[in-house]
Amino acid sequence: MKTILDKISDNSIQVGIVGLGYVGLPLAVSFASAGVSVIGFDPSSSKIAKINAGENYISDITDDLWQETIKHKTLQATSDFSLLSGCDAILICVPTPLDPYHKPDMSFIEAASNAIGKYMKAGTFVCLESTTYPTTTEDVVLPILERESGMKQGTGFWLAFSPERVDPGNKTYFTRNTPKVLGALDEKGLTIGQAIYKLAVDEIYPVSSPRVAEMVKILENTYRLVNISLINEMALLCGKMGIDIWEVIDAAKTKPYGFQPFYPGPGIGGHCIPLDPFYLEYIAKKFNFDLSMINTAGHINMMMPHRMTLKISSALNKHKKSINGSRILFMGVAYKPDIDDERESPALKIMDEVAQKGAIIYYHDPFIDELSTPLNRKFKSEELTAGLLQKSDCVVIATNHSAFDVDWILTNSQLVVDLRNAVKISSNKVYKL
Amino acid sequence: MKTILDKISDNSIQVGIVGLGYVGLPLAVSFASAGVSVIGFDPSSSKIAKINAGENYISDITDDLWQETIKHKTLQATSDFSLLSGCDAILICVPTPLDPYHKPDMSFIEAASNAIGKYMKAGTFVCLESTTYPTTTEDVVLPILERESGMKQGTGFWLAFSPERVDPGNKTYFTRNTPKVLGALDEKGLTIGQAIYKLAVDEIYPVSSPRVAEMVKILENTYRLVNISLINEMALLCGKMGIDIWEVIDAAKTKPYGFQPFYPGPGIGGHCIPLDPFYLEYIAKKFNFDLSMINTAGHINMMMPHRMTLKISSALNKHKKSINGSRILFMGVAYKPDIDDERESPALKIMDEVAQKGAIIYYHDPFIDELSTPLNRKFKSEELTAGLLQKSDCVVIATNHSAFDVDWILTNSQLVVDLRNAVKISSNKVYKL
Repeated sequence: MKTILDKISDNSIQVGIVGLGYVGLPLAVSFASAGVSVIGFDPSSSKIAKINAGENYISDITDDLWQETIKHKTLQATSDFSLLSGCDAILICVPTPLDPYHKPDMSFIEAASNAIGKYMKAGTFVCLESTTYPTTTEDVVLPILERESGMKQGTGFWLAFSPERVDPGNKTYFTRNTPKVLGALDEKGLTIGQAIYKLAVDEIYPVSSPRVAEMVKILENTYRLVNISLINEMALLCGKMGIDIWEVIDAAKTKPYGFQPFYPGPGIGGHCIPLDPFYLEYIAKKFNFDLSMINTAGHINMMMPHRMTLKISSALNKHKKSINGSRILFMGVAYKPDIDDERESPALKIMDEVAQKGAIIYYHDPFIDELSTPLNRKFKSEELTAGLLQKSDCVVIATNHSAFDVDWILTNSQLVVDLRNAVKISSNKVYKL
Repeated sequence: MKTILDKISDNSIQVGIVGLGYVGLPLAVSFASAGVSVIGFDPSSSKIAKINAGENYISDITDDLWQETIKHKTLQATSDFSLLSGCDAILICVPTPLDPYHKPDMSFIEAASNAIGKYMKAGTFVCLESTTYPTTTEDVVLPILERESGMKQGTGFWLAFSPERVDPGNKTYFTRNTPKVLGALDEKGLTIGQAIYKLAVDEIYPVSSPRVAEMVKILENTYRLVNISLINEMALLCGKMGIDIWEVIDAAKTKPYGFQPFYPGPGIGGHCIPLDPFYLEYIAKKFNFDLSMINTAGHINMMMPHRMTLKISSALNKHKKSINGSRILFMGVAYKPDIDDERESPALKIMDEVAQKGAIIYYHDPFIDELSTPLNRKFKSEELTAGLLQKSDCVVIATNHSAFDVDWILTNSQLVVDLRNAVKISSNKVYKL
């Protein structure tokens, strides 16, 4: 019988990817475009239908890569998890959100593990990619796989962890050219894992255990949470001290060593940085450890939308207006520029808060046609016209999409609250974060 | 009468530098080695004597540069502050320490300002380089200069701020090739300041005000304080979770964007990073603002020496020994590798704590012949022999000078507590942070 390494050698390996979101689909495409046979698993029938119809729904996947994938005919998608039994390697790319009380929601990992444990055949390599707290692979996934399969890690199957490093909107680094960290439970698993991932990623960086690999990803994103929170707090102080924080950052950047710039904004959005560090904070409690830096960063981030509401209020106050009754246009609601994702975007929280205070709100975002706020207000993106700007008491630039013509916006607006340093020139119409 | 700009043109300018420490002397040398006439002012008669005898006492100044300086015969030093009256430009490089209650000690800046105000002639350019809180130049230095001189900024003299960016031990970046940020109180002052600093530094980066320039330096060092504190806290958690933090950092470094590595250690030392952010915290209070990130980082840093004492205790406990009565050798007490400066070094605080718990302590540091701990214990550096290592119950690597032969230390030691990841190999003799 052919081993998994034999199958890699003669390209007869069947890769299964569970979860076809912004991590799973690019990974599937990276394998499939290289001619590796991939089955993607997802409960969403609309995703399955799109993939099987040759339609891409992840903007980070370039047209070239997608066409290459279609040409090879090696990618198919299904909601039938029993087909996991035909896979030699199964990579788990499911969401790891926080619940409303900011605690890890492990239900997707558990459900995937249950399905895999139930269906996988002997000799399968399983790897978790979802960002989660260290010890998850060993203490959550492993027991489920062993219980459901009746097999043992190291003989019946191999288990590893390899963090996804997807950076939505990044035009330089994508799945294949971003080095991949991999930690397995034993040497054999590490060898197999490296061989498999080499089919889709140029450089694999092995570490000594899954928990090290789990901690790597958390460290990367905690670094970002802490530094963005620091610069946001500095920005608020600079506002009080009459100092332009962006000028400070640009000058600090001239230091040729030991400094990496971060930029302030209305808060941290997306599905990684505002979430991942709190997975670590959660497990740290089990070790009687209080992560004070993450805790403090979380405090700052949590209050940012409210602070931005106060900025809007202060700006309107200069025009002798209140939030109550003012027409406020939000420009850009995605959580970062030039992407079509508004998850965890601070803009939505600010929209809710000013709406609750009586503002008449609406938004324009070229990437997001419609949205629902955390408090369930529904909007469709307005057409951007000079008239729309002119009739608004206040235009809030919440995300600086590069398509925005800032000069034109400024010319046609009564008042701009600029949360992203989009307006470089000084003007009495502009109120900056 | 020649203006200051004329004097720069025909190299007849007289530069005065107040404070001849690790910032002032390298700056003086950068001017003098280019043929600019410099008088250094310092109350220390030993420093004055050394400079006037052609003897360098700052290890960061290379022999080549020092010889070039001596050759030009353009540098002299004095304790007679009345000679400030002969200077066209006066640059202030005095210390800005914290008092024992961690509040800014502005006495050096005030004393320098008083002397300059008293003696400076009309048309002088004055620039503060000492790291301090934003608004110091305007609210502390300016009123003293105007009061003591009877002249006004902008007509009688010009005032600016330009943060020093000295990084002790840095072999790549020194005064001349490190871009210099400069903020003046008016356009004329900025023009003069740029012309003057261009004589000593390749690239000047002008900003709109002294307070922006003040904030730049604080941001740079706050970034470092916060990130070192973060990684120290992560290291303590990793210790509890059986994860090697250094392995995690090395793996995280493979991320090709958005990550800058910091390394854990026994705490933050030196005269910048543990101090500067607390200048900002101090002034923030005046603006009713609480800098929670700096506060939290300060907490972590303050507890690190104590946590390291616990590590030493745990390591000795494995050998069924107590701190009380154990012989403990500290290897490296400088605050970072390959420098001769133990100011604010966490090693000294750990030495005090284990000594108070009854340990017999001694140290070896090839760069520091003798020291006094914060609690006033005096030591001379021991000669490093195999016998010294063998007789010690515990060898603590507090600073990893590159001269240390780690394999030899490990071979000859009973137990090594490695706070710097100096020992790369695993061994039951080694207890890592």
